[in-house]
Amino acid sequence: MERAEYLEAIKQRMPEKRYIHTLGVMETAIKLARKYGEDVKAAETAAILHDIAKYADEQWMIQIVQEHGLDKQLVNWGPEILHGPVGAWIAEHEFNINNEDILNSIRFHTTGRPGMSKLEKIIFIADMIEPNRKFDGVEKLRNNAEIDLEKAMRSCIWHSIQFLVNTKQKIYPLSIECYNDLIDLD
Amino acid sequence: MERAEYLEAIKQRMPEKRYIHTLGVMETAIKLARKYGEDVKAAETAAILHDIAKYADEQWMIQIVQEHGLDKQLVNWGPEILHGPVGAWIAEHEFNINNEDILNSIRFHTTGRPGMSKLEKIIFIADMIEPNRKFDGVEKLRNNAEIDLEKAMRSCIWHSIQFLVNTKQKIYPLSIECYNDLIDLD
Repeated sequence: MERAEYLEAIKQRMPEKRYIHTLGVMETAIKLARKYGEDVKAAETAAILHDIAKYADEQWMIQIVQEHGLDKQLVNWGPEILHGPVGAWIAEHEFNINNEDILNSIRFHTTGRPGMSKLEKIIFIADMIEPNRKFDGVEKLRNNAEIDLEKAMRSCIWHSIQFLVNTKQKIYPLSIECYNDLIDLD
Repeated sequence: MERAEYLEAIKQRMPEKRYIHTLGVMETAIKLARKYGEDVKAAETAAILHDIAKYADEQWMIQIVQEHGLDKQLVNWGPEILHGPVGAWIAEHEFNINNEDILNSIRFHTTGRPGMSKLEKIIFIADMIEPNRKFDGVEKLRNNAEIDLEKAMRSCIWHSIQFLVNTKQKIYPLSIECYNDLIDLD
């Protein structure tokens, strides 16, 4: 599928604001892929599809997890965690994506994980720093992404975890594994 | 063993400063046990022994983990995490403690865990708020301990996790499980 077809398909599944965010992630991911020598088309596809499940019905997502062998513990977490793995499932089964790196980039774009690939890092970072994002500290993350992909990933997961703790939200265990994997290198 | 014997035994194993901390934990744990209806003698014993392994040799602790069936992942963590589980092992095998609740209170006094017992919470909290502790926010934790043991435990684990993230230190997975177990109740 070409970019226009993907964009048309996802546009149906999300409100205008999320679509604009997705375009921002796409632009950012393409830039980062060019800068850091990753497959630009793969980055584009992963970025366009990363939030494909963001507005899917929670009960339907739980059903997908249960019926298609996704990690069972996901059902104890809300849509914010579910939409990554279920998005990867949709990308594979509705959009016929079979590039495992693209699927993992969608799957882990919210939580991160230890040992992320370059493409996974690009999508995780692009999702946080795309031009429409506005939060304290985003400029620092953008600057890091200009300099060093590893440093950018480290600062992004650190920022995410810090935000979750400061706002007293649960933290998905895989995110702490990702944080532990990277934080030592700072 | 009586209090004086325990104190004499642990005094040999730690510097003066840590011994004074231990006395503070003991006093605080006794107060909390009285206040919240826990076995005072059990609280006293757990408090006196909680840091028994704090100055044990790291290689020796790793050997204890490996030779006595403690959780294998502990060997990837430093003495700050090792000294709780190894302290429980010493309490059991050198001090002949067979009260599992006392052993768990020593075992999990640094990391916490989901589903902590009342005694485990008392030791975890006492360790953080004893009178010699000085850090930003300790007064709030002390106040919470005057009001509600659950609230105190929740604020203590929250404070611990926040401190670790802010100082970019690794977080033991069990601590996040403890945090996730309690944070929703706030």
